[in-house]
Amino acid sequence: MLAAYAAKFDADNPIAALEVGERPEPTVPEGWVTIDVRATALNHHDLWSLKGVGLAEQNLPMILGCDAAGVDPDGQEVVVHAVVSDPAWKGDETLDPKRSLLSERYQGTLAQKVAVPARNVVPKPAGMSFEQAACLPTAWLTAYRMLFTQSGLKPGDTVLVQGAGGGVATALITLARAAGIRVWATSRDESKRARAVEIGAHESFESGARLPERVDAVMETVGQATWSHSLKSLKQGGTLVISGATSGQAPKSAELNRIFFLQLRVQGSTMGTRTELAELVQFMENAGISPHIDSVLPLAEARAGFEKMNAGDVFGKIVFTV
Amino acid sequence: MLAAYAAKFDADNPIAALEVGERPEPTVPEGWVTIDVRATALNHHDLWSLKGVGLAEQNLPMILGCDAAGVDPDGQEVVVHAVVSDPAWKGDETLDPKRSLLSERYQGTLAQKVAVPARNVVPKPAGMSFEQAACLPTAWLTAYRMLFTQSGLKPGDTVLVQGAGGGVATALITLARAAGIRVWATSRDESKRARAVEIGAHESFESGARLPERVDAVMETVGQATWSHSLKSLKQGGTLVISGATSGQAPKSAELNRIFFLQLRVQGSTMGTRTELAELVQFMENAGISPHIDSVLPLAEARAGFEKMNAGDVFGKIVFTV
Amino acid sequence: MLAAYAAKFDADNPIAALEVGERPEPTVPEGWVTIDVRATALNHHDLWSLKGVGLAEQNLPMILGCDAAGVDPDGQEVVVHAVVSDPAWKGDETLDPKRSLLSERYQGTLAQKVAVPARNVVPKPAGMSFEQAACLPTAWLTAYRMLFTQSGLKPGDTVLVQGAGGGVATALITLARAAGIRVWATSRDESKRARAVEIGAHESFESGARLPERVDAVMETVGQATWSHSLKSLKQGGTLVISGATSGQAPKSAELNRIFFLQLRVQGSTMGTRTELAELVQFMENAGISPHIDSVLPLAEARAGFEKMNAGDVFGKIVFTV
Amino acid sequence: MLAAYAAKFDADNPIAALEVGERPEPTVPEGWVTIDVRATALNHHDLWSLKGVGLAEQNLPMILGCDAAGVDPDGQEVVVHAVVSDPAWKGDETLDPKRSLLSERYQGTLAQKVAVPARNVVPKPAGMSFEQAACLPTAWLTAYRMLFTQSGLKPGDTVLVQGAGGGVATALITLARAAGIRVWATSRDESKRARAVEIGAHESFESGARLPERVDAVMETVGQATWSHSLKSLKQGGTLVISGATSGQAPKSAELNRIFFLQLRVQGSTMGTRTELAELVQFMENAGISPHIDSVLPLAEARAGFEKMNAGDVFGKIVFTV
Repeated sequence: MLAAYAAKFDADNPIAALEVGERPEPTVPEGWVTIDVRATALNHHDLWSLKGVGLAEQNLPMILGCDAAGVDPDGQEVVVHAVVSDPAWKGDETLDPKRSLLSERYQGTLAQKVAVPARNVVPKPAGMSFEQAACLPTAWLTAYRMLFTQSGLKPGDTVLVQGAGGGVATALITLARAAGIRVWATSRDESKRARAVEIGAHESFESGARLPERVDAVMETVGQATWSHSLKSLKQGGTLVISGATSGQAPKSAELNRIFFLQLRVQGSTMGTRTELAELVQFMENAGISPHIDSVLPLAEARAGFEKMNAGDVFGKIVFTV
Repeated sequence: MLAAYAAKFDADNPIAALEVGERPEPTVPEGWVTIDVRATALNHHDLWSLKGVGLAEQNLPMILGCDAAGVDPDGQEVVVHAVVSDPAWKGDETLDPKRSLLSERYQGTLAQKVAVPARNVVPKPAGMSFEQAACLPTAWLTAYRMLFTQSGLKPGDTVLVQGAGGGVATALITLARAAGIRVWATSRDESKRARAVEIGAHESFESGARLPERVDAVMETVGQATWSHSLKSLKQGGTLVISGATSGQAPKSAELNRIFFLQLRVQGSTMGTRTELAELVQFMENAGISPHIDSVLPLAEARAGFEKMNAGDVFGKIVFTV
Repeated sequence: MLAAYAAKFDADNPIAALEVGERPEPTVPEGWVTIDVRATALNHHDLWSLKGVGLAEQNLPMILGCDAAGVDPDGQEVVVHAVVSDPAWKGDETLDPKRSLLSERYQGTLAQKVAVPARNVVPKPAGMSFEQAACLPTAWLTAYRMLFTQSGLKPGDTVLVQGAGGGVATALITLARAAGIRVWATSRDESKRARAVEIGAHESFESGARLPERVDAVMETVGQATWSHSLKSLKQGGTLVISGATSGQAPKSAELNRIFFLQLRVQGSTMGTRTELAELVQFMENAGISPHIDSVLPLAEARAGFEKMNAGDVFGKIVFTV
Repeated sequence: MLAAYAAKFDADNPIAALEVGERPEPTVPEGWVTIDVRATALNHHDLWSLKGVGLAEQNLPMILGCDAAGVDPDGQEVVVHAVVSDPAWKGDETLDPKRSLLSERYQGTLAQKVAVPARNVVPKPAGMSFEQAACLPTAWLTAYRMLFTQSGLKPGDTVLVQGAGGGVATALITLARAAGIRVWATSRDESKRARAVEIGAHESFESGARLPERVDAVMETVGQATWSHSLKSLKQGGTLVISGATSGQAPKSAELNRIFFLQLRVQGSTMGTRTELAELVQFMENAGISPHIDSVLPLAEARAGFEKMNAGDVFGKIVFTV
């Protein structure tokens, strides 16, 4: 079957490590099912895999991809949940030390078929296209968990989203807005600030700008470049949720004095549970919102999509149809 | 000044106990302020007061009313918070055993002026009219607290609102919808079911109907008439929030076996805090939603408003302008 | 192998339905393990099973018992967790609608061997005897979850335990005391009140007595006989946790007005998770506390134990050694 | 009256800034009461005040001290709560941006009399001495809030306390042990490790040592010197509560990758509420535990106490009798 996969690693030029071509159909362990993929989407995680981050050499060649929507063996239209936890694990799957994401230990979603544990699918609403549904399992799920499991935000509160533009940040803006939260976004880029307001932010600001007032929570994936601004933007008792640190993980000062004196909370977060994915899907249907799609390409042209993401010139998700 | 007040009690005919006429301006204890009322609204609480429920004889004559919006001594436009807690009380004001509502111990809002503790006001957004703002301090605040403090509901969950039509129920429907929750409502009355869908319910059902699936939470003020249906409608681990029991407080069976075996939670709730009122106001502005107004009358015609509420033929709030 | 089992039902005389004799060794599905039982204990659940409550006729003959400690195939000393949830279920096992307890669908623990899913065991501390460990999986686990997952109690709070004497109530008293909670217990029986104080209650009271002050939470399994007293004993915002209703499930009035006006919480609870069992075991070791054992008999004399429990003359657990 | 106070600041030699001598009795604003101090205790906060940290020059001379127990105007024996919040503030006093501690804006407790808002006292149990009670309002209250409000720890969990020896750390060890939590403590000093076990730690370790297993929560006031070890010691989803950063606030790396990938929580904390103080006092009585007292001196010899604390050679609290 056709698939986009890593055959080797290249830390400097990840695109050079990408292959788009034939791969055997996935094996299906007991209790797993094969999904006919109709649409699949890209994440930065896929670029990291090509660089050899988070993917072990002995697992090569590895089909990439954590996002997919398709059809299960019973003909049901489904969204795939990419977190594979240990069968003996009960409780939040994202806290299972033995968990992995599709494309780390098990073959990923950038293919005509993907095998997943039977429980790792969620019904796709009829009103949502496969392309839209394929955007949800990674960036949007991460954003849902940050906002609604980790932050304590309530309707009427104010959230600051740092670094508008990234896949998680755009999801954060749209989801928070649809939940009655006041959304402020930052970006160094004027066009991204404008775009942030278009997709739901009540206001947007230059990175590091002094805000009109302190906020209840900050959401970010940026790390050291925004750390100090994030902490300074929070009310007493406020919460900073981080699910990445793309600019680096070591701010000049962690500002522990500010954290303890203002009783701030820093909450790490990564991915989400199957239950959260089902809630996300239902939420988007309840609220009539859709993911932002940057571009749609056939899977055979996956290389063009990887190149676009690698160039960084993206607002929303890059989707491949199968 | 002009005011609507209780001069006596009449358990059978509360309207007979109502006076609309001149009352002295309120006294202003230290730390309190006088608000120039611009709009004020009715609640069933006001009818109960006229019947002698919750209002002590020695406090007569008492100006009625818990809802108001107006202008503070600094010229700021404000919404009044009606819960007066003890100065020594810290923590959730609604849990203060010494708290009272305006019109119980202190003169109420159905007047040209009302005195409240200085902290008992919240800024009114410029885009919200005084009539709209006057609807919020009681029924809408009660609904906000039920949904966002007491229930544990998250965007994507499903809530059942029993008895669509009442002031709290209509607020519940609109607020839950605006927060990304799937809203199902029940009513015995077909026109109220239709109206429930108009104001935000995703679907509405006859009272007692079997639902398409079990829900995450039920909100109600009905009591014994809906108790059994509410419990049967809940998922394992679900939550029933009650803030009233208008049909009576003693269901034939409390069904404790169902409660413990399905690990249900029954959560009582009443009114809300000043912080919750501020969040409610901000939420309505964030989401662009407004309270449902049944009718607007000048305060001088308050009797007509009371009669309409007493007749039960109301969908939304009855507002008086001052 | 030797086992105590139900061969039929007898609603009036459960002891008549009990057999103690040879049964085949349990079958072991994939992913399950066989535990060599060293000690096992009785619960009221076993009497109910003999009466035909919670046990289906087509599952007869059924080995009874939910409590056991023993040795796993690797020679590890373990405590058995009796809640068998669906393999696809993630999250709290006690909320899985498809869960069952040992002795309902799968053969129980009152036998020389019992088969359980591999994850359904918890290491037994070296300092805890098999007899002690066998007391924990049902009544003590139920009490642990009521107190530390469901109630919101903190060290320094006060809890009321209704009906001191039962297996869950004695566990509640001991566990709450060891966690720094002030424990008040009630019983109609003077000797049980004295015994409650011996095992950890700070004070004990006659059933229905007015308490020195209102409490933060009430724990009970009694139901309608204590419902009104439980609600009246709670502070504003207090919590009533119920995990049974042995006196009936329909109090004359559910007193919904009290529930909503004082913002009380009624929280159902049943059993506990494997994680909670592991925490319970560690807690008992940390705090140096042990379960209360009424009597120890060889499994061959199980009938005598059942008769004693049926007669109601028990304070603590009846344990069988194997 | 006799008092220990700061008349100036000395960043290098705080003892040189200390005066012990006559000061006027405190003024008593409306709603405040004067407490006859019977015992009062030292905190590092008092040394910082002498250095000019957290105390403004225009407030000099300032009586030092946040800890006290004494007798109120009605003859009741009380413990003083040192957090003075704004009268208009409802909710957690420690989150009030306008709050102050006694000895910052209002005269402190190291005196024969101290004035506090009427609500800022908690009844002292008869079985607790004034010397013991005087230890609680700062370090022990801080520890109580860290453990029981901020950490999510439950009986049976394991906590790591960094830097055994300090006032907060010794309180953490004793309180956690008395709540059924397994307590591991670290110190660079062998005698402090031994002492930690004496006062309740289940085990103690050298600073930075690899622990037998990962813990549910870490409590610390050390800051950059222990940051990395604290994070590495936590389970997935674990919590680090910090209420100080005595070694500095800027670890070489904040290790944000670890925080987000393991979904750790860093929770700042400072002081505690009046309600928490009341719970702490009741907890200590329920559990039969007492604060650790290093030494007791008459207030007239306060200088000796300050010198001892400044020398760092302390295990437990330094108490002054009045």
